[in-house]
Formats: sequence, C-alpha cells, structure tokens
Amino acid sequence: MAQLPTVEDVARAAHVSRQTVSNVLNSPDIVKAETRERVEGAIAELGYRPHASARRLRTRQSSTIGIRLDPLVNGISGSVLDRFLHALTEQAAERGMRIMLFTATDPVDEIEQYRNLRDGADVDAFVVTATRYEDPRIEWLVRENVPFVAFGRPWGEDVESPASSWVDVDGYAGVHDATTHLIGRGLKRIGFLGWPAGSGTGDERRRGWAAAMVEQFGLDDAELEALTTRVEESVPQSRRAMENLIATSDLDGLVCVSDSLALGALMAVNEAGRKSFPVIGFDNTPVAQAVGLSSVEQQLDQVAAATLELLMGSTGRRVIPNSDRPPHPRHRLVAPTLVVRRSSHLAPVQEVRTHTPGSTTTGNHNREGEQ
Amino acid sequence: MAQLPTVEDVARAAHVSRQTVSNVLNSPDIVKAETRERVEGAIAELGYRPHASARRLRTRQSSTIGIRLDPLVNGISGSVLDRFLHALTEQAAERGMRIMLFTATDPVDEIEQYRNLRDGADVDAFVVTATRYEDPRIEWLVRENVPFVAFGRPWGEDVESPASSWVDVDGYAGVHDATTHLIGRGLKRIGFLGWPAGSGTGDERRRGWAAAMVEQFGLDDAELEALTTRVEESVPQSRRAMENLIATSDLDGLVCVSDSLALGALMAVNEAGRKSFPVIGFDNTPVAQAVGLSSVEQQLDQVAAATLELLMGSTGRRVIPNSDRPPHPRHRLVAPTLVVRRSSHLAPVQEVRTHTPGSTTTGNHNREGEQ
Repeated sequence: MAQLPTVEDVARAAHVSRQTVSNVLNSPDIVKAETRERVEGAIAELGYRPHASARRLRTRQSSTIGIRLDPLVNGISGSVLDRFLHALTEQAAERGMRIMLFTATDPVDEIEQYRNLRDGADVDAFVVTATRYEDPRIEWLVRENVPFVAFGRPWGEDVESPASSWVDVDGYAGVHDATTHLIGRGLKRIGFLGWPAGSGTGDERRRGWAAAMVEQFGLDDAELEALTTRVEESVPQSRRAMENLIATSDLDGLVCVSDSLALGALMAVNEAGRKSFPVIGFDNTPVAQAVGLSSVEQQLDQVAAATLELLMGSTGRRVIPNSDRPPHPRHRLVAPTLVVRRSSHLAPVQEVRTHTPGSTTTGNHNREGEQ
Repeated sequence: MAQLPTVEDVARAAHVSRQTVSNVLNSPDIVKAETRERVEGAIAELGYRPHASARRLRTRQSSTIGIRLDPLVNGISGSVLDRFLHALTEQAAERGMRIMLFTATDPVDEIEQYRNLRDGADVDAFVVTATRYEDPRIEWLVRENVPFVAFGRPWGEDVESPASSWVDVDGYAGVHDATTHLIGRGLKRIGFLGWPAGSGTGDERRRGWAAAMVEQFGLDDAELEALTTRVEESVPQSRRAMENLIATSDLDGLVCVSDSLALGALMAVNEAGRKSFPVIGFDNTPVAQAVGLSSVEQQLDQVAAATLELLMGSTGRRVIPNSDRPPHPRHRLVAPTLVVRRSSHLAPVQEVRTHTPGSTTTGNHNREGEQ
C-alpha cells in the first residue's frame, strides 16, 4: 500500500500524543477545545482518514450485508440466485451498502459463519437464501435477534409469523398466468411437468396450474394427477419424459416448473416434428431468451428492492435494528410476469410455413417475441 | 443484536480502565504482566471477543478481497464471471478470506471505490475483471502499489511487465484444439463465427482457429477472411448469419467465439434440416451442456486458484504485500479443455437415423456425450 498519513503523523504534526488523536476521533467531548481544533487542523492538512475499521468499531455499523454464496449449480436455472445477487449488490450500492460473500458447507457451518460475522461487526444484516422446512438458520437469527431477510418463504411454518422476515416470488400466480395463457389460445389438455413432490416451491407452482385447470375445466384430483409428470431438475430427464409423453399421451401443451425442464421438453417436441405444441418454462433464464421459450420471470429487481426495504426502510441508508422495526407485515410476495415468446405463440393445429424449401422443420420460424 | 460482553464489561471485571483493556488487546507489551494476566482472565471468563474491526485496525488486514460485480449480462455467456466468482469465493474461504462485492458505474468510479476500500482497510487486495486496452484501473493500482490480480490479459501492453499481475485463459489454444478436433473428423471447410474485430479476447480466439487451418490446409489471409463471419454477441444475429451461410457458402463445420453464437448457429442448422454440420462453442455455459453443444471450457476453478496463488502464495492465508512478492512472473495462462458433446460428434456426410418414424428431424439423436 502507498504511504498514507497515520495517527502518528497527525500526533506529531499537532504536537499531541497518539492517544489524544484517538480521543479526538472517538470521544471528542473529552478533549479540550483548543487541542481538538489543533488535531482536527492536522487531520485536514495531512489528509488523514481514519480507517473504516475504526469507524465500524465506533458506530457498530459496517454498511455491509452478508450473504452466503450458494455452491455453483450447473443447471440453467442456477443463474437465478446469481441474478438476485447482481440486483441486490446494485441496489445496496445505491444505499451506500456493500455485500460480503461467504461460503458454508451446511446449515450448522452457515450459522457459525453468521456468528463470526455478527461478533466481528463485519455485517449489519444477513440475506438468507435457499430456505427450507424448519430452517435452523432462521431459528438462530430470530433467537439471536440479528436483522435478516430470507429470499424464500418459511415453507410449512406460519408465514405470517412476526418473527420471520421474508421476500418471495408468487409461483402460484406465475404458473396460473402461464396456464391461463395457454387456455386462452384454445388448448385443453395442458400437462404439468414438475419436480418430485415435497419441494415447497415446486408444489406451490403446481397448485397454480391445477387451480387454472380446475377453474376452466372442472378437473378432479385424479385427472390432474394424470396430466402431471414429475422428473428431477435435468434437461435430459425432461427430454426423455417428453418423448414418452408424445408417444403415449394426448397432451396439447405443457407448463413446466422450470426452464430446464421446459428446454428438455422443447427439444423432444422439436425432434418429434410436432408443429404446434406450446411449452412454457419458469425463471426466464438467459437460455429461455436465447431459444425463444416463453417463461415466467421472477422479477429479481423487485425481490432485491423488497429485501432492502424490509431491512432498511423504503429509502434508508442503514439497517434498522429489530427493536425499531414496525412489527408487521415483515414479508413481501412479488408478482412474477409471463414473458411470451415463440414457444407459446404457435397456435395449436395450424401449420406454420417454413422458409427453407424442401426441408421439414419444427415450425419455429415465427420471430415474434424474439429478443 | 444480542448483548455481547463489551470492553467496559471486561474493564469492570478486571478492575482496570477501558484504556488498559485496549492496551492489553493492542499493545500488550506496555502493560504490567500482573495486570495483563488479570485482564486476559476476565476476557476468557466473559467470552469477550474483540471486534473484527479492531483486529483489522491493529493488523491492517481485513482478510477480504474486493471485486467489482459487473452489471448483469443477460446473454448466456454472462454466467462466466459469475462462475468465476463462485470458484473464487469458495477457494478464498478455504484460505480464511472473504469476498467483498461493490459496483461501479465506470472505470473512474471504480477507481474511486478502490480508493475508499483501500483507505478504509476494508480489503487487502482487489481482483480486476473485464480488462481492456490501456486500462486506467490497472494503472492506478500499480501506481498506488495496491495488491491486485487481473482476470484478463493487459491486451496491447507488455504482458511480461513485472508491474502487472494477471491470470487469463488461453483462448488461442482452446480454439486451436476445437478446430483440430473438427479437422480430425474429416472436415475441411471449417468456418469461424466471431465478434467484430478489435476485441482482444475475440481476436485471440480467431488466431487459434486461423493457425490450425493454416497448419493443415496452408490457407492465406484472404482465404481465412472468406471463411470468417463476424456478428455481435447475440443469438438471433448469429442465427440469421448462419441461415445466410447455409444458403450461400459451402462450409461443412463451424467454430464459434462463444456459446451464444454457437447456439444461434445450431438453431439455424437444425431448422435447415442439415443432418451433419458440427458446431463448437466457447465457454461451456450451462446451455451448452443442456443442448449438447461441444464447447471450450475455461476451467474457472483453475483461474480462481491461480488468482489466489498470485495474491497469497501457493498455500498462504494472507495477501502478500507487493514488496515481499517475487517479482516475476506475475501471471498465469490457464489451458482450457474441449468438452465434446453431440454437436461435434455428428460425422460429416453420413446420415443419422431418427427414431420417430415419418418425421424428419435434425438428426440430434446421438446421446453420446450428453450429460
């Protein structure tokens, strides 16, 4: 590092002790006015800046929010939390806050990291992601009275609990919209391609599809189950499942719990030469934009804005202590939006003409909605 | 925050002044042994932990590395820096370091952020990304003697300069390998789909393709130029360019400067019903894995490891001051690897049978190499 002026330099210039300089910086009231002015003059003249560390120590504020960086997910939906991190970092910067990243091997280790960062005054608050049933991290943060917001509902608990503070995307509404969009295009046998049951997020999204199908067609549970296919979050698994559905079912469209599953389905549809089989994904990942896949956009800018609003108030530049926080409600449900692209534009039944004479294509030549 | 023991609590328990506690923590040599032991006993008994802020102030070390988070890129290659960030955060954690994220509107603003973070002892070093010709950020960091490593070569400058410190991926070697792979499959008219000239990274990658083509076929510059197509980093632009190439050229394969361009090309190839037209991308993004696109993998784990090695030595747990650093070489060129998937497996000319009778498909049924 370059030679910056130190406390010693200030002390020498002002003809005082190092301790007196420290007192001027930390407890100016106990320093005689004349001495204080001399020290302040030396500080200004030398361009001395007290370390942020000292400032943090005085104010007990770090202007920093801590967030665990999840292990890298190679799936195409793994970018969602990265996009949230971008939005959070940019909006936090506008409020004078920085983001501290750390890693953890499991929830117990993550709590240990919370403790270290809290004890060290390294961060003023935490953002918790990848929440799950009876999350021990949330329990610890609530018990220790540490300011935090979770991105993700406390599935299975009282979402209205005043102790917990969360922002989430309304997956139910997003998938309901996607299903209604396909119903509006004249489709009837709309399947749902989801994850294995037991995921709070996945089950919620399926409920959105089921509600739209019940409202329109009055299906019962058995009929809904017959229209549902469940696979792991994997493009090849989804592709094989869709090949099977094409061969054995009379579906005329598909709403998917994620873009990964939608992409696998779209590949099978294209290869089977189905001219019109609308597919809709969820997350609006970059790949959805790239291949023209209609998808539900999580609005991560709004999620980040709501997270900071819960932590810092609507325009504040510091984290509000829990004791000063309005008790209720401490959560926000962000409405997603459906981004319509070619994959859901294809009208059922109707043929789409290709522009390459002599070749049979999948009919994906409608550029409408392409980015 | 919960009530943690404070310096005052320790002072009261040890029957000393707050200043004495501070002296025990910061300048133990000046405290009488008996007093020091009493204070240390009180610290242990109360479980008092000095703030990390105080520790930083004493040691002038923050155990933190600063990195600007780039604005969100929506393209499918935008995830490369996010994946680097994951690798860096995880490997830094293994060395007891954390990552501080900040944003900047332009290089001048970024330098201002560097200055604030440096002056505040908030970070021990910086990692600089998205380097460019005559980068003012690098100039500032060198001039101010701040430890840093750039991810990206100082294009157009002396890469051997002892002042600069960088890690980069050998794009030349990666694209050379990809081209050689296609030559080995019997292809001759291998085109290069690149970005407009003037990008250090893009020009370097094209040189790798050109060298392989010159070695094998002895092409001259005009012939190389005739095989080169240049578009912006955009899937639809690439797709339209490829539609045009299919109609007007006799190419039999394509090496692309990025996965985005390769994906657009692959979509045009599939729609045109070309049974065998190998395409290779660069970056090995999640979408390449999802759609079976062969691609050059940047080995971001190795890039992160090399970055930390340059900053902290091979096993160190603190940033080495510039003055203690071996002067040369301060850079690492990481060799990428070619990941072969279906998009380059298709043997030229030979027909691939489809499994859906009566439909014409793009022939992408070979599952070999699929993840």
